Amino acid sequence: MLVIVSYDVSTETAAGRKRLRRVARVCESTGQRVQKSVFECRVDAAQFEELERRLLAEIKLDEDCLRFYRLTEPVEVHVREHGKFRAVDFDKPLVI
Amino acid sequence: MLVIVSYDVSTETAAGRKRLRRVARVCESTGQRVQKSVFECRVDAAQFEELERRLLAEIKLDEDCLRFYRLTEPVEVHVREHGKFRAVDFDKPLVI
Repeated sequence: MLVIVSYDVSTETAAGRKRLRRVARVCESTGQRVQKSVFECRVDAAQFEELERRLLAEIKLDEDCLRFYRLTEPVEVHVREHGKFRAVDFDKPLVI
Repeated sequence: MLVIVSYDVSTETAAGRKRLRRVARVCESTGQRVQKSVFECRVDAAQFEELERRLLAEIKLDEDCLRFYRLTEPVEVHVREHGKFRAVDFDKPLVI
């Protein structure tokens, strides 16, 4: 299945920024980054449980937020993509 | 159904930043923001087609990227949320 992982880690403190990096690292080991804090992960049920367990071990439940959206097979039916996928270095400093 | 909208609009030019604002505005009119560029939209099939049409009218296909993930009913089975949802002003200047 395809799992979309979206997270919002509080970066007000150095500890928060460290958590953010660790959460990103866990996601990078499993999926493809599509936004700064959004990953697409192709996993089976066991891998999903493992991913969830690892991410829950990193975040602080009273400060951060973590969302999983599970897309059922056939995944292609449930995903529509338009435009150009750009490989962006989401870890570099970002000023908008 | 629940549709997750994720977009990546190139903000290198003033025109791009304007597109980004317009895309965000369309999404805000339909759904709930969960990340800077991610929205959860509860829509029926007609509303989804309308949302897609409006967003496609805003983005530039050769510069931006737009993704829709459709979650089937019962939506609750396919979404897991952990932690604290923070209402963040994603439009203010952001430095990471």
